[in-house]
Amino acid sequence: MATTSREIRLKSRPAGLPEAANFELATVELPEPGAGEVLVRNAWMSVDPYMRGRMYDRPSYVPPFELGQPLQGGAVGRVVKSNDPRFQPGEWVESLNGWREAYVAAGAALNKLPSDGAPPQAFLGVLGMPGMTAYTSFHRIGEPKAGDTVFVSGAAGAVGSAVCQIAKIRGCTVVASAGSDAKLAWLKSVGVDAVVNYKKGDLLKQVREAAPKGVDIYFDNVGGEHLEVALEVARPFARFIECGMISIYNTAEPQPGPRNMAYIVGKRIKMQGFIVSDFMDMREQFHADMGQWVREGKIKWEETVETGIENAPKAFLNLFTGANTGKMLVKLD
Amino acid sequence: MATTSREIRLKSRPAGLPEAANFELATVELPEPGAGEVLVRNAWMSVDPYMRGRMYDRPSYVPPFELGQPLQGGAVGRVVKSNDPRFQPGEWVESLNGWREAYVAAGAALNKLPSDGAPPQAFLGVLGMPGMTAYTSFHRIGEPKAGDTVFVSGAAGAVGSAVCQIAKIRGCTVVASAGSDAKLAWLKSVGVDAVVNYKKGDLLKQVREAAPKGVDIYFDNVGGEHLEVALEVARPFARFIECGMISIYNTAEPQPGPRNMAYIVGKRIKMQGFIVSDFMDMREQFHADMGQWVREGKIKWEETVETGIENAPKAFLNLFTGANTGKMLVKLD
Repeated sequence: MATTSREIRLKSRPAGLPEAANFELATVELPEPGAGEVLVRNAWMSVDPYMRGRMYDRPSYVPPFELGQPLQGGAVGRVVKSNDPRFQPGEWVESLNGWREAYVAAGAALNKLPSDGAPPQAFLGVLGMPGMTAYTSFHRIGEPKAGDTVFVSGAAGAVGSAVCQIAKIRGCTVVASAGSDAKLAWLKSVGVDAVVNYKKGDLLKQVREAAPKGVDIYFDNVGGEHLEVALEVARPFARFIECGMISIYNTAEPQPGPRNMAYIVGKRIKMQGFIVSDFMDMREQFHADMGQWVREGKIKWEETVETGIENAPKAFLNLFTGANTGKMLVKLD
Repeated sequence: MATTSREIRLKSRPAGLPEAANFELATVELPEPGAGEVLVRNAWMSVDPYMRGRMYDRPSYVPPFELGQPLQGGAVGRVVKSNDPRFQPGEWVESLNGWREAYVAAGAALNKLPSDGAPPQAFLGVLGMPGMTAYTSFHRIGEPKAGDTVFVSGAAGAVGSAVCQIAKIRGCTVVASAGSDAKLAWLKSVGVDAVVNYKKGDLLKQVREAAPKGVDIYFDNVGGEHLEVALEVARPFARFIECGMISIYNTAEPQPGPRNMAYIVGKRIKMQGFIVSDFMDMREQFHADMGQWVREGKIKWEETVETGIENAPKAFLNLFTGANTGKMLVKLD
C-alpha cells in the first residue's frame, strides 16, 4: 500500500522578508524502501534562521534550496519500515529530511536517537544542532574564563538561551538581550544576571548599565545595532562569536556596518564567524557535557510549537518577527 | 656647559586631519645627567600613523599625549654623556624619546643597537617596531600557509611593505594596494605578484582581477572601502589582520562600516586586532629571522626622509596624504 507524504517546497525566492507565497504545499507518493533503505514518518521538524540563507541563489557553505523542490532541515521521526538491519520499526531517528511528513532514505543517512529519557524533539534543540552550535563556538571562539562578562543577543532563541546557560555554568556574568518582557523573564528564571529589551529605549545605554565594566565575550545572533553596541562596550581582547546576523538577513539593500569598526584594532578584538560543522571534533564532548547538564537540570529550554506541515512556513516566518521563545518547532504527528 | 634641545609639543588636539597649527616648536635646556642617567642626541626619529590615536583625549592602550608636552615616539641616537656604566659616549641607543633633538634619561629606559652593519634608522623601520608589527601579526593572526593569497592594503608603508616581503618568503601570492604608480612599481620590484592603485578605478574590480581565486589573508592598514572589498573577496576561513584603519583615523564623524559584515559569518572569517606589544614573546624570533633576511637581501626597504626637528610635524602630516614610500623618518643631526 502506497504511503503519501505532504511536503513544503520553495515556490519562489524571497526578495526581503520571506512570505507565505514563497512556499507551496504538495503531496507526493513515496516509493517502497529499496535495499538498505528506510521509511520514516517525521514527528517533529526544525525551522532555523540559517535556512533563510539557503533561499538565496548564491554560492555559500551549503548549496541553495532548489525551486520546486522540498526544503531541507533537521527532523526526528520513527521508523515505519526498514530494509537496513540497523533500524527497527518504531525506533526514533534524526535526519536532515525535514519539511515533509514522511520520507524514504538510505539508513546510512540517519542517526538513531539515544534513549536517555530526553524528549525526541530536544535533539532538534538543546541536544542537537542549536545546542552544539552554542556549546562548540562558545568554548572554541569565546575562550571563556570564570568572571568574564558575556553579552548574548537573540538570547531567548534556541542557540542564545543555550549560550546563556553554558556561560553561567562556566562562571561568567551574563547579559542577555531579547525583544519581549516575557522572554526576558524566562531568561532571568534560568539564571541570566541582567536582561535588556532591545525594543525599549536606547540599547547602548541599557547594555552599559547592565555591564558597567564592559564585555569580554559577545555572542552575536543579530548583527546590526547590537554589533555596534557590542564594539562600544567591548573590553580589551574581547572575543566576538559571530553566529548570525538575523537583523540583516532579510534586508533587500545591504546595510551599513558598525560605525565603530576601529575598535577592533584599538581594543584588540577577535571577531570570528563559524558554522557548527567546523567544530565536529567537539561532538563527543558536547554530547557528554550537554547530556549531563540536561539530566542535572542545569540547562533548561523552552519550545514554541506549530502543528501540522501546512504551518511550517508560518513557523519559519515567525523566527523573523521574534515570535518564538526557545526552540521553534513544527509537530508533524 | 648646558645642552639645549628643540622639541615638538602638542599645542592643541586635532579635530579631523591634523594640521601644522596643532604643533609647536620649543627649546629647552637639558639638565646634567644624574646618577644612572644618560645624555643622548637623537639622530633619527620616527613618525607613525598610530600616533594620531594618542592625540585624542580618550582612554586607549596607551595614554593620550598631553597638551603642552613634547610628543613621544621611537628614536635612535648617540650617547653624549653617561653616568650608566653600560653606555659609553658614541654608542647608538634606541628609545621612545622621539620628537626632540636630545634628552636625558635613565639608562634603564634605553636599548643599545646591535652593531650588525644595518644602518641605525633601520631600527625604526624594518628591524624595529614596524618590522616587528608586520612579522608577529602576520604569523600569529595570519597563520600563513604556502600557496595562500595575501592582500595587503597600505602596502607601500613601513609595515605593509614588510608584510608583503615576509609573505613572499612564506610562499604566498601577494596582492598589494597603494596610491601611486611609483609605489606600486617599487612593490613589484621587491617581488609582489600583483598591484592595485586604489586611486585609479574600481577597487573591488581591480582586486578581483588580481586575486581571481579570492584572498586567504587580508592585512588591513586602511579600513573603510578596503575592508569592505576584502570581505567581498575573502575565501572561507580567511584571516583578517587588523593592524590599522588609517582611512578613518581623521574623520570627525564616525564612518559607516562595511555593508557586507554578514560574510564574517557565512565565510567563517576571523578578524583580529592587535598591537605589537601583545606579541612580545616573539621578539627573539623576530630579531633572528628579520636580521637574517635583511643580511641576505630578502627584505628591502625604502625611506622617506624629512630633515630637522622643525619638519617633524610635516613628516607626520604627510603620513595621511600618502606622501611616504616605506618608512617615514625625520633626520635630526
